[in-house]
Amino acid sequence: MSFINEDFMLSTDTARELYHQSAEHLPIIDYHCHLSPRQIAENIQFRDITQLWLVDGHAGDHYKWRAMRANGVDESYITGGGHSAWETFEKWAGTMPYALRNPLYHWSHLELKRVFGIDKILSPKTAREIFEECNAKLATPEFRGQALIRKFNVEVVCTTDDPVDDLRWHRMIAEHPFGTKVLPAWRPDKAMAIDKTDEFRAYVAALGEAAGIEIKSYRDLQDALQKRHDYFASMGCSLSDHGMDRFYSEDYTESEIESIFSKVLEGACPTEEETVKYISAFLYDQAVMDAEAGWVQQFHIGPLRNNNTAMFMQAGPDTGYDSIHDKPIAVDGNRFFDRLASDGKLARTILYCLNPKDNAVMMTMAYNFNDGTVPGKMQFGSGWWFLDQEVGMRRQMDSLSMLGLLSRFVGMLTDSRSFISYPRHEYFRRILCDVLGKDVELGKIPAEEMDTVHRMVRDISYNNAKNYFNF
Amino acid sequence: MSFINEDFMLSTDTARELYHQSAEHLPIIDYHCHLSPRQIAENIQFRDITQLWLVDGHAGDHYKWRAMRANGVDESYITGGGHSAWETFEKWAGTMPYALRNPLYHWSHLELKRVFGIDKILSPKTAREIFEECNAKLATPEFRGQALIRKFNVEVVCTTDDPVDDLRWHRMIAEHPFGTKVLPAWRPDKAMAIDKTDEFRAYVAALGEAAGIEIKSYRDLQDALQKRHDYFASMGCSLSDHGMDRFYSEDYTESEIESIFSKVLEGACPTEEETVKYISAFLYDQAVMDAEAGWVQQFHIGPLRNNNTAMFMQAGPDTGYDSIHDKPIAVDGNRFFDRLASDGKLARTILYCLNPKDNAVMMTMAYNFNDGTVPGKMQFGSGWWFLDQEVGMRRQMDSLSMLGLLSRFVGMLTDSRSFISYPRHEYFRRILCDVLGKDVELGKIPAEEMDTVHRMVRDISYNNAKNYFNF
Amino acid sequence: MSFINEDFMLSTDTARELYHQSAEHLPIIDYHCHLSPRQIAENIQFRDITQLWLVDGHAGDHYKWRAMRANGVDESYITGGGHSAWETFEKWAGTMPYALRNPLYHWSHLELKRVFGIDKILSPKTAREIFEECNAKLATPEFRGQALIRKFNVEVVCTTDDPVDDLRWHRMIAEHPFGTKVLPAWRPDKAMAIDKTDEFRAYVAALGEAAGIEIKSYRDLQDALQKRHDYFASMGCSLSDHGMDRFYSEDYTESEIESIFSKVLEGACPTEEETVKYISAFLYDQAVMDAEAGWVQQFHIGPLRNNNTAMFMQAGPDTGYDSIHDKPIAVDGNRFFDRLASDGKLARTILYCLNPKDNAVMMTMAYNFNDGTVPGKMQFGSGWWFLDQEVGMRRQMDSLSMLGLLSRFVGMLTDSRSFISYPRHEYFRRILCDVLGKDVELGKIPAEEMDTVHRMVRDISYNNAKNYFNF
Repeated sequence: MSFINEDFMLSTDTARELYHQSAEHLPIIDYHCHLSPRQIAENIQFRDITQLWLVDGHAGDHYKWRAMRANGVDESYITGGGHSAWETFEKWAGTMPYALRNPLYHWSHLELKRVFGIDKILSPKTAREIFEECNAKLATPEFRGQALIRKFNVEVVCTTDDPVDDLRWHRMIAEHPFGTKVLPAWRPDKAMAIDKTDEFRAYVAALGEAAGIEIKSYRDLQDALQKRHDYFASMGCSLSDHGMDRFYSEDYTESEIESIFSKVLEGACPTEEETVKYISAFLYDQAVMDAEAGWVQQFHIGPLRNNNTAMFMQAGPDTGYDSIHDKPIAVDGNRFFDRLASDGKLARTILYCLNPKDNAVMMTMAYNFNDGTVPGKMQFGSGWWFLDQEVGMRRQMDSLSMLGLLSRFVGMLTDSRSFISYPRHEYFRRILCDVLGKDVELGKIPAEEMDTVHRMVRDISYNNAKNYFNF
Repeated sequence: MSFINEDFMLSTDTARELYHQSAEHLPIIDYHCHLSPRQIAENIQFRDITQLWLVDGHAGDHYKWRAMRANGVDESYITGGGHSAWETFEKWAGTMPYALRNPLYHWSHLELKRVFGIDKILSPKTAREIFEECNAKLATPEFRGQALIRKFNVEVVCTTDDPVDDLRWHRMIAEHPFGTKVLPAWRPDKAMAIDKTDEFRAYVAALGEAAGIEIKSYRDLQDALQKRHDYFASMGCSLSDHGMDRFYSEDYTESEIESIFSKVLEGACPTEEETVKYISAFLYDQAVMDAEAGWVQQFHIGPLRNNNTAMFMQAGPDTGYDSIHDKPIAVDGNRFFDRLASDGKLARTILYCLNPKDNAVMMTMAYNFNDGTVPGKMQFGSGWWFLDQEVGMRRQMDSLSMLGLLSRFVGMLTDSRSFISYPRHEYFRRILCDVLGKDVELGKIPAEEMDTVHRMVRDISYNNAKNYFNF
Repeated sequence: MSFINEDFMLSTDTARELYHQSAEHLPIIDYHCHLSPRQIAENIQFRDITQLWLVDGHAGDHYKWRAMRANGVDESYITGGGHSAWETFEKWAGTMPYALRNPLYHWSHLELKRVFGIDKILSPKTAREIFEECNAKLATPEFRGQALIRKFNVEVVCTTDDPVDDLRWHRMIAEHPFGTKVLPAWRPDKAMAIDKTDEFRAYVAALGEAAGIEIKSYRDLQDALQKRHDYFASMGCSLSDHGMDRFYSEDYTESEIESIFSKVLEGACPTEEETVKYISAFLYDQAVMDAEAGWVQQFHIGPLRNNNTAMFMQAGPDTGYDSIHDKPIAVDGNRFFDRLASDGKLARTILYCLNPKDNAVMMTMAYNFNDGTVPGKMQFGSGWWFLDQEVGMRRQMDSLSMLGLLSRFVGMLTDSRSFISYPRHEYFRRILCDVLGKDVELGKIPAEEMDTVHRMVRDISYNNAKNYFNF
């Protein structure tokens, strides 16, 4: 029996029944990812499996890079660029046997099986044949970007886009549909990052240009963002996302924010207190914009980024030197949502945390703000980044279950830069079915309620997202 | 086989043996709850299952309310009061199938079975018949408040009472015994809350009146509290409780505390630093009072309360808008108990935490202060509130086991406002037996020590509490 | 079948195969412990099991002491010294049945079996015969200190030594080898503790004497430490260790550090800010020293020590009154290693955390600094102290697996003061095999990769440490 067999990760009969009858064949709604709209529009043809898996020009797979570094692989094979595709792949294949129990081991073999139909275990012994088989397939039209997405029955993909973006690639995709809806999502992180003053000023200028507004004040900034928000909405966007180390909900006045903004625009650096006030105002105003537009807002809380300065200089951001923060989040998070709820401006919201110690805090915080208008309005999102693995997912599902309604969960997303990471939805569904199947077999869920459990599996796998989002 | 069958939650033969032979039939000592002494004294007859389960005038079940809001139920069915008992119940029944894996699902079905003898799964399909069957039973004398308590073989109940309370209902109960001892417990939170100045001043006045002392100083306050403490003791009280976001153990002098107290009494607001000093002094003095009286003191650490201002205005406190805090607790907690231990004034103590990340910190802190005078003197209390669920209980038992002596655990309490939440003791005992049974079957506990394991089950279920408290 | 049988802790056939074929017979590298070099050199003969287990003059077993106190044993039997060896042992035997599920229960029975060949369960019933059997054996040459170590096939032991130490006992051991290499390890905690001013000044004087340098400045201190570091290296040391409540990485200048150092040397107390700056400088300089010498550095992060002042006065440090801290560690930890990495001075590093909430933070922090030079350069160390138990070890292995490469783990150490705690290596290996065996049987690890899994078991049990350290 092959490793990735039909019962992979399904440890009980009930789990198998749930997965095969209710989860396996549902379409995928991948409501948050980092695919390149351009690569989709241009229907990218990958040179080889090394580009697809390891060193894509758009953005490499820093999960694999961290594993390779830990395995003693020299940086020249990773971001260094000094080696051939085969040499880099060989280093990855050599790392694979050391990655047992890491999610990369499961992901990689799921991808080999589901994308390439390869059933072999990747190791130095099999590396060459797998390399060649993958590359041969990647050279065919059936393995171009759009076909890779279609292969997984993906109904919707939401990319992650800057407000300045003209969304030309999204327009091109819309004009040449290929069966999967590709929608933009709004990620205004750069307009929030007032403490990176040079980049901020340049960004404000670019945003002004994109919006056709000369931005001289914070009010202007908001007007420009609103114009872009409207434009994104016109292009089918209904989802925002914010990446933050923690929540921000300091007190501030409009005039304080205006003067902080002016000061920075004129070349000065904000104090730490001013930065906190600015971000608090910015996020509040963004949340109001989303609420008024009927969008869903997402908050990804908890990374501590770019911790290795030397490698940041050499290889840039997002190259595998980020980790998990440990700031408190309860007070600021609750205050942030309380203000919005008090003002009647709380959009549907998905909260993701990167530190597993925050699971219970996040869940109980989110549930303070359900208002009965939308089932599952406040969501605790799926295990993310470092937590997107079996243990992380089981704990997220347990927190969600024990402190709330698992049934109302909008489920999985890839959050990935890769065209072939959709098996993570399969992985998630298998684990979900395993969790529920075990509970049924242990009598913790009544056997007579199997119809409800089947519906729950279908809902979390697909229907809840379908109903929750306005795609 | 019905859902709530005799082997519910018992996954091994040993677990079943332990539960049925040693746990099942023991009386219950419910040493901490929020039952209304008046409702007990008056032997309340519930109008219907909706009042009993959902919208009791005394205080509703905010666990269920949070679940209903998350399920998209309009507030008018919850705290709004605009609907009939049936309509509200119907909304709850409609939420039930979405609550699979939440403790409410188990609790509700345990209560239907144990209280009403109903074996059906609650859902929209069965809602009407269950509603009517429950209501018919509730109209009979066998389902009045005292009989509900008696049904569960409850030996002792400790309520939660304010020092100002005259305990008239407790006296009435004592004068008309019904088979369960109902004792008051001392909860002086309002005398601690100096930062809520208006309420604090009013409270000090009321306390002075209750004690027959005109309170003009912090010393007077302590005298008044001591008089009430003595009075509570005379009424059978031997247990205090404090609800706190964190521990407090700032340095202070008597004269500082007197001047903070005077300042507030005269109408001013304390600074944050003053509040911290006052609470530090207050809790120390309370702890000394408990030690001198030979009481047990409890600390419930970690909620972040009333996070939804709009709903607080509309529905008040304790309506489902509290969540979990994430402040550090190790330094202040240890310093607090160190002072008491150094002064020879450390009472038997139970610590509860609301944030599961604090389990290990709490356990190791508690065990710094065992002094050999009483087995299990320093207790890490059972999974509480948001953690009173299967995963939370298992983790608490694991922390307790791995970092201390599970055998000395005083076990379960309901912490509930409901007359029918006693099946939570059954639920706890089943999980305890499941934990131990599994360890026996895996050979982690020697099979030849089954007698010890049986004794352990009996101790944690009943004997330890019996010996630990002075009821 | 006896409790400690051949399949103890091994719940699957695959686990049993892995353990018995690949783990069981490998030698032990115990790279961090607190054995007394003098006791090793003098080949200590223990008076009785009470001395060996409970009240060794060198340092008692505070794990057992905490358990006894929690069980209601009077301090006179513990650190009080008022009772006979038998009376103290009897109290411990009486505590044992209450310690089910605590690691002490497993450790104690493993030690009885592996050291003394005793298969009985320790309890009041068996206490006397076990006491006598152990004592009779301890009186023979086969149970002297060196023989006890040899019994466990220990290849290397690293003790924990102060830079001031003349390592005379290590020299004596080296001159009279007994089959196990005993190496010193460098623990300069006292040179870091500038806030304990009196002890610090005395220590600086002693260090100066040991190094033959009159220490008048921080520079002198570093020179003296460097001389001792070189001396330790000449004695086979290649491992340092630092015990800290948290990481330190404040900004500082050389002249600031010099003036703080002078100030303290002249009799003043440092401010908290000065202490933090000093420790930041000290640790950086130590890390550079280790990197330049090619040593491995260890950081034990997270205790909150000496919380019970009265007992500290009475019994001193390390007597069972320490607990787990809950300070944030992510920012300072990352900054500390970033500085070293930027300066090309990052030694191989093992990070241990005492608060289980920090597992994921530690792992992701460590992995920011792997540089491909050494496989597994940055290590997240085994469950330590309070976390050295089954649940703690499983969680550490899960964090390591899900966030990195379990295969590269350097594995277990005893961190113990006892001559007979080596069965903790067995315990660790059994749990490791159980974790892997279960994954194989659940199909999470491909069955065809059993060779890889066997190699992984051998690597983590022995080979990785062999390759990682320069012993």
